Amino acid sequence: MTAVDTTPVTTSLNLGPARALSCRECGHEVPLAAEFACAECFGPLEVAYEFGAVTRESIESGPKSIWRYRDLLPVPPDVQAHPNTDPGFTRLVKADRLAAALGVKSLWVKDDTGNPTHSFKDRVVAVALAAARSLGFTVLACPSTGNLANAVAAAAARAGWDSVVLIPSSLERAKILTTAVYDGSLIAVDGNYDDVNRLATELAAEYEDWAFVNVNVRPYYAEGSKTLGYEVAEQLGWRLPGQVVVPVASGSQLTKVDKAFRELGTLGLVEATPYRIFGAQATGCSPVAAAYKAGQDVISPVKPDTIARSLAIGAPADGPYVLDSVRRTGGAVEDVTDEEVVEGIRLLARTEGIFAETAGGVTVATAKKLIESGQLDPDAETVLLITGDGLKTLDAVEDRIGPKAVVPPSSAAVRAALGK
Amino acid sequence: MTAVDTTPVTTSLNLGPARALSCRECGHEVPLAAEFACAECFGPLEVAYEFGAVTRESIESGPKSIWRYRDLLPVPPDVQAHPNTDPGFTRLVKADRLAAALGVKSLWVKDDTGNPTHSFKDRVVAVALAAARSLGFTVLACPSTGNLANAVAAAAARAGWDSVVLIPSSLERAKILTTAVYDGSLIAVDGNYDDVNRLATELAAEYEDWAFVNVNVRPYYAEGSKTLGYEVAEQLGWRLPGQVVVPVASGSQLTKVDKAFRELGTLGLVEATPYRIFGAQATGCSPVAAAYKAGQDVISPVKPDTIARSLAIGAPADGPYVLDSVRRTGGAVEDVTDEEVVEGIRLLARTEGIFAETAGGVTVATAKKLIESGQLDPDAETVLLITGDGLKTLDAVEDRIGPKAVVPPSSAAVRAALGK
Repeated sequence: MTAVDTTPVTTSLNLGPARALSCRECGHEVPLAAEFACAECFGPLEVAYEFGAVTRESIESGPKSIWRYRDLLPVPPDVQAHPNTDPGFTRLVKADRLAAALGVKSLWVKDDTGNPTHSFKDRVVAVALAAARSLGFTVLACPSTGNLANAVAAAAARAGWDSVVLIPSSLERAKILTTAVYDGSLIAVDGNYDDVNRLATELAAEYEDWAFVNVNVRPYYAEGSKTLGYEVAEQLGWRLPGQVVVPVASGSQLTKVDKAFRELGTLGLVEATPYRIFGAQATGCSPVAAAYKAGQDVISPVKPDTIARSLAIGAPADGPYVLDSVRRTGGAVEDVTDEEVVEGIRLLARTEGIFAETAGGVTVATAKKLIESGQLDPDAETVLLITGDGLKTLDAVEDRIGPKAVVPPSSAAVRAALGK
Repeated sequence: MTAVDTTPVTTSLNLGPARALSCRECGHEVPLAAEFACAECFGPLEVAYEFGAVTRESIESGPKSIWRYRDLLPVPPDVQAHPNTDPGFTRLVKADRLAAALGVKSLWVKDDTGNPTHSFKDRVVAVALAAARSLGFTVLACPSTGNLANAVAAAAARAGWDSVVLIPSSLERAKILTTAVYDGSLIAVDGNYDDVNRLATELAAEYEDWAFVNVNVRPYYAEGSKTLGYEVAEQLGWRLPGQVVVPVASGSQLTKVDKAFRELGTLGLVEATPYRIFGAQATGCSPVAAAYKAGQDVISPVKPDTIARSLAIGAPADGPYVLDSVRRTGGAVEDVTDEEVVEGIRLLARTEGIFAETAGGVTVATAKKLIESGQLDPDAETVLLITGDGLKTLDAVEDRIGPKAVVPPSSAAVRAALGK
């Protein structure tokens, strides 16, 4: 192992309202540091807070990015003093045409395709970067097969940090390009994603100045997803929706949206009205839906086989907490076939002009299925989280769509083709 | 020709501050209608205004989209009452690392990749749709080879309108998919882009209810580009930048940014400080740069041959007006090779984490060249317009970038590859 000259400094650390890391299982607390597993019980650590005075006005006077919620995140108060991609505050779209197609009364789409690298990963990476800087790290790293690789490479470039992004060497060319362009240290590993993940954990232990966003600084990283919940509530006019449908990969995002809604209620920023959270999975990788339906508390890992690759985590770390959130709020977890995923992508595009990646197709198709089965109340206000961009998963729709007609260059031919 | 039952209604038309169409050449005015060429001299028509009271406060209290400038656009006052993609108010990024690389003091990047379909075309199409609705049209149409096709198909889907998008049948599969997904009437035409364009003009004359955004409603459509200028000024804190670099295709965008800056000064929304406008072209399609350098007023058409396809207009309609703007403000028009375009894309990605399409590479590379040649003042504040997304032109970088290394799954191999 190479000599490391930058030791993370945790003294006089100021991560805003974050006061400790707390074990989700046993509640044991440790000071803020680059740790992710409880020394007592090996349970996952998450950020615990002591919030100061936060008002709607203080938030509304902030920047048009996730940093308007900096007083609710584990980042230093001067987080904006350092360059970052400033993600978030994406559109919340009133989706009346999709609502009509689905037969629901009031529907909103949270469209995270507008983020800097066009997925919600920019949110979590921005928070990870800010915390990592405070913790003394100097390199941003991750194992990834897609959106996360883009987000880490872009955020590091903007910050002037080196990045180390590990990908399976078999990754599609387009996904390699969209990361390589930022010119960090992109390393292709001869192995599958499990091999890459293992390697990341190994490297995180060896290099003390490398912040693997989803490994050694994961507790901070994960908190970034809370901003989706904050934004939905603020953009609805400071109230909680009755129902929200969230795609489930590791499950972290769903639990953090839940956490955000609860925090807003506790802090008096919204009225603590009841809400129901629904999880959406692809049938080809639906271990959480399976556990939910079987009434189990434990997730049985699966081998993913679905076009929704950004959700293809066979052993989702936060699966049990997803079950907690869903059951506590009266929601459900449902799954849809790849065929339905593509139909979901097309339905959203056709009705609202929003082109989502496969994960978005999962969310839309799951919402449809939940409505048809009576699990989702068509009369309650509903929000769908669309977390990534269709430009990144063109292969999913490739064989199913195309021009209506191919014609010679004459107006008569066009008229004939359109039947007009 | 089929019977048309919807005749555009132009009586009691309310397009906000727009009061007439005015010929850019002879000044002849006609009432607001779906016209684009002067009946007197065949010159291009543009929108003339009579602005009401517009204040910084009235704008700042508006929505976070181009509609905050609705009192400066040819759209009805209730433009937001109808569903549209609500583009605009994209990020203005302080680009300190790019500034350092280019050797300039103060540099900003206007990042229009955050628009709904990830290019500035969402702006112009949204204005065209709003005007077209008021003018009585019911179908949104265009000939296009890329960004415009995406924007028209998405905007029509969101509005619940049919769209007719004409493309050359030889268009790359990815660009077909990103339009077809919105499920309008996408028609592939056996012919080149000139054939497709001619066909559009023919169809615009035949179907009175089809608004070809860049043909029969072009005067309204073009005004949408003013919002880039408004946003830059507002985001700088209500002042004009000293220099702005704008990519030149038809040339319309550059002239509208100029128009926006002048309007803001006239209306007292900013101090009318001097600014210089620079045009950026790819050498493989640089008729405006050629005319500028030769000191000519007339543009000699060229046959485009460049990877910057979104700028590949060989006979740019607004070329002469670009020359006017550039010469009046003390700017210039410069062009860069395809090699430099790719380097421009990579430089922006590496320094700021922003992945631009080829047109963005043209803008960055041109800025670099203008600085090196002393035409652009390194001490004056400069804004670069990045108008489209790198995800759409992956082929341009495909052969030049990739992983730093391919390694077996061991940390020793990663360390060796990184030389650490």
